[in-house]
Amino acid sequence: VQPLVSSLSALLGAEKVLSGDAIGDDYTHDEALCGERHVPLAVVLPSGVDDVRRVLVWASDNRVPVTARGAGTGLSGACVPRANGVVVSFERMKRVLEIDTENHVAIVEPGVSLEALNAAVAEKGLVYPVFPGENSATLGGNVATNAGGMRAVKYGVTRHHVLGLEAVLATGEVIRTGGKFVKTSTGYDLTQLVIGSEGTLALVTQVTLKLVPLLRHSATLLAPFPTLDEAVCTIPLLVVSGVGPLLVEYIDRMTMMAITAQSGVSLGIGADMQASTEAYLLVVVEGRTADRVDEDTQLAGATLAEHGASDVFVLPASAATQLIDAREKSFWAAKRAQASEVVDVVVPRASLPEFMHQVKAIAERHSTFIPGCGHAGDGNVHLAVFERDPDKRYALMRELFEAGRRLGGVISGEHGIGVEKKRYFLELEDPAKIALLRRIKQAFDPNSILNPGTIFD
Amino acid sequence: VQPLVSSLSALLGAEKVLSGDAIGDDYTHDEALCGERHVPLAVVLPSGVDDVRRVLVWASDNRVPVTARGAGTGLSGACVPRANGVVVSFERMKRVLEIDTENHVAIVEPGVSLEALNAAVAEKGLVYPVFPGENSATLGGNVATNAGGMRAVKYGVTRHHVLGLEAVLATGEVIRTGGKFVKTSTGYDLTQLVIGSEGTLALVTQVTLKLVPLLRHSATLLAPFPTLDEAVCTIPLLVVSGVGPLLVEYIDRMTMMAITAQSGVSLGIGADMQASTEAYLLVVVEGRTADRVDEDTQLAGATLAEHGASDVFVLPASAATQLIDAREKSFWAAKRAQASEVVDVVVPRASLPEFMHQVKAIAERHSTFIPGCGHAGDGNVHLAVFERDPDKRYALMRELFEAGRRLGGVISGEHGIGVEKKRYFLELEDPAKIALLRRIKQAFDPNSILNPGTIFD
Repeated sequence: VQPLVSSLSALLGAEKVLSGDAIGDDYTHDEALCGERHVPLAVVLPSGVDDVRRVLVWASDNRVPVTARGAGTGLSGACVPRANGVVVSFERMKRVLEIDTENHVAIVEPGVSLEALNAAVAEKGLVYPVFPGENSATLGGNVATNAGGMRAVKYGVTRHHVLGLEAVLATGEVIRTGGKFVKTSTGYDLTQLVIGSEGTLALVTQVTLKLVPLLRHSATLLAPFPTLDEAVCTIPLLVVSGVGPLLVEYIDRMTMMAITAQSGVSLGIGADMQASTEAYLLVVVEGRTADRVDEDTQLAGATLAEHGASDVFVLPASAATQLIDAREKSFWAAKRAQASEVVDVVVPRASLPEFMHQVKAIAERHSTFIPGCGHAGDGNVHLAVFERDPDKRYALMRELFEAGRRLGGVISGEHGIGVEKKRYFLELEDPAKIALLRRIKQAFDPNSILNPGTIFD
Repeated sequence: VQPLVSSLSALLGAEKVLSGDAIGDDYTHDEALCGERHVPLAVVLPSGVDDVRRVLVWASDNRVPVTARGAGTGLSGACVPRANGVVVSFERMKRVLEIDTENHVAIVEPGVSLEALNAAVAEKGLVYPVFPGENSATLGGNVATNAGGMRAVKYGVTRHHVLGLEAVLATGEVIRTGGKFVKTSTGYDLTQLVIGSEGTLALVTQVTLKLVPLLRHSATLLAPFPTLDEAVCTIPLLVVSGVGPLLVEYIDRMTMMAITAQSGVSLGIGADMQASTEAYLLVVVEGRTADRVDEDTQLAGATLAEHGASDVFVLPASAATQLIDAREKSFWAAKRAQASEVVDVVVPRASLPEFMHQVKAIAERHSTFIPGCGHAGDGNVHLAVFERDPDKRYALMRELFEAGRRLGGVISGEHGIGVEKKRYFLELEDPAKIALLRRIKQAFDPNSILNPGTIFD
């Protein structure tokens, strides 16, 4: 082991290699609620693409597993290293290389955080609209998991905003894909293939991102519904109304209680109404002018009221910001409540009511409760599972995933498979597809050094 | 040869197999302007996925090349068969299987034309917004080439509207990818990998498409500019103005003369102004209400006028439809004028002025003229090349592609590589990427039966 670390230090310079006690606890895990931690052989801190290239050639030569790491905010264990491997942490590659206002494009290094990116582009009247809910997350990590979040109902996910990549193959070649344009029919789309591959196909060293104009006006509506069913049945109607909402979230009563308690936000909803509410819809509309936002607020409000909302509140800006912020942090509320796992199944949005019925039935069958909230406009549900026993938890989660799949959905809408969902993925997915994915993996990474054990074994 | 055809007929039934004189001329070519034609061994007309599966197993066993065909409207020769191969023509698989208004999704067989799809979904107030300009084209063909067209500046290209596929692998396995949702982080994105692969990775038997609400109001602006440079310099300003145009096309004087003459459309622009115009911008805005369209028309018109337009005409609906229709058909005008090749380079939209300068210089160097028009909002230019001599044409086209690549662009924005652009692609593209594409091809198609010779040899 020690000779390997020495050779790595000799290759890159000692200041770019951490080993032994210098490896902080953070590098051993991400934010997945249950899952193994591993201390890697070494942590490498590249300062540019050439360092990354050299690490990968070295790792190929020595057959050392390599795990890429952004901010470590993932929820599926995809950046948890192997004990015999190295972590490539992109924390020093965090330059915004270019903001191109004519083409509406930013080019960033993978260690740039969403917060830093949006601060830089806001000055130019632009925004990177993908909003996975954790601003400290990096663009490199977002690309690896194809991060989604609340605004996907309007803007899509990471995949829809990455126009090109610079990436290093396992064998050390540096490739560039795509560019500052939306249209290309010039060979297979390597950009899209690397996005969502969770560090198993290539290491991304630059990301070309599509930006959109920052719309200055918005309004936030909160609608309590007596039943979860009425709330989720209203979602497709809202999305097809033409209002083009920026986000449509559902929050069940238990989750709303947890996040309002934690954040201290006051919604101005009386205790009686709260008691008779099973779920809330949170809707944001945005526009170029205040008039358009007012018009869309009317239209959205009318749709909510017509389909069973007990009331429709247009929240003051400060309360809106607080509530959305608290909703983003609902994962931490679940963690604090000692949830054992968080599920992010996606189903067709019109199948959400049926899915939620089945979730309720599964919870009853397992004598537990499964609170949740979700990116309802996209059919993407976040459910907190409380079950300490691994076998029982496995059985319960597998039922949730099977229910989602039967309705035409998939296991993960945005968190990724990583190591945490791998067992379910391999058991439930079509073996012909798994075999094909393995052959693609082999085409990129013949020595299996890139994040082995993630997505599949 | 004959025993192969007999075994195919025995396998599928004679009514699904054409051979010999029964193979019409159409099956031997697409619409590429120059390029070889080949009469295949047989044409297979599957009626469902099981037929496709059986053909591919048979072709794998017998090592027979298989070329998929939609409407044959492609421009790169990607559906031209091998003489020792079979064509799988999807003309009998043209059912719209489902229009799901709650999820805004249509599921179609590959032989459905854009015209048939949009007729079916318009009744529900929806539209499939990708508009490659040839309504007889099929969705299967659109998926194969990742077709783009005029509306990409607002809605993106085929890739952005395909949510899932059913596809048959070369080895006969039927896989299903994606579904009725936008978000998924569940293994590598096979949907996106198959899109744009020009029939070389898998045969698509079902396509799940994202639809959008049909906006009832629109306006069409036509702005003549004294110089091409002023016209193309205005484009990024228009796109970033916030108006969100549905399309931004430039049309040079020569192309405008050809398409107006051919279509008979009258633009109401005086002879003097026409004579002092080097290029036109054609801009369409659309919206949910007439008020919004009026507002956006004002904004777009002001931007055009401020940046050098000689005038701004808001076209009457009938003239607008005629002109856009004629613009779509400009390829046929070029064909009639005996153009030898059409180029569809894409560059970053802000680099269009520089690219057009270089095109002019290249034309002068080669003592020719290169008229054009293009999806300017996307930096996607269509240039007609008039040069009969193959070596000179090669030299000229290579210069055009190199100029585009130096500006950060790619060879093809929407037509694909096919067989026509293969030489340029293989010569100009990074060999490490080509090698990777070949390994991916091998992962899908170990016996190289799917459209061999397309994209690469």
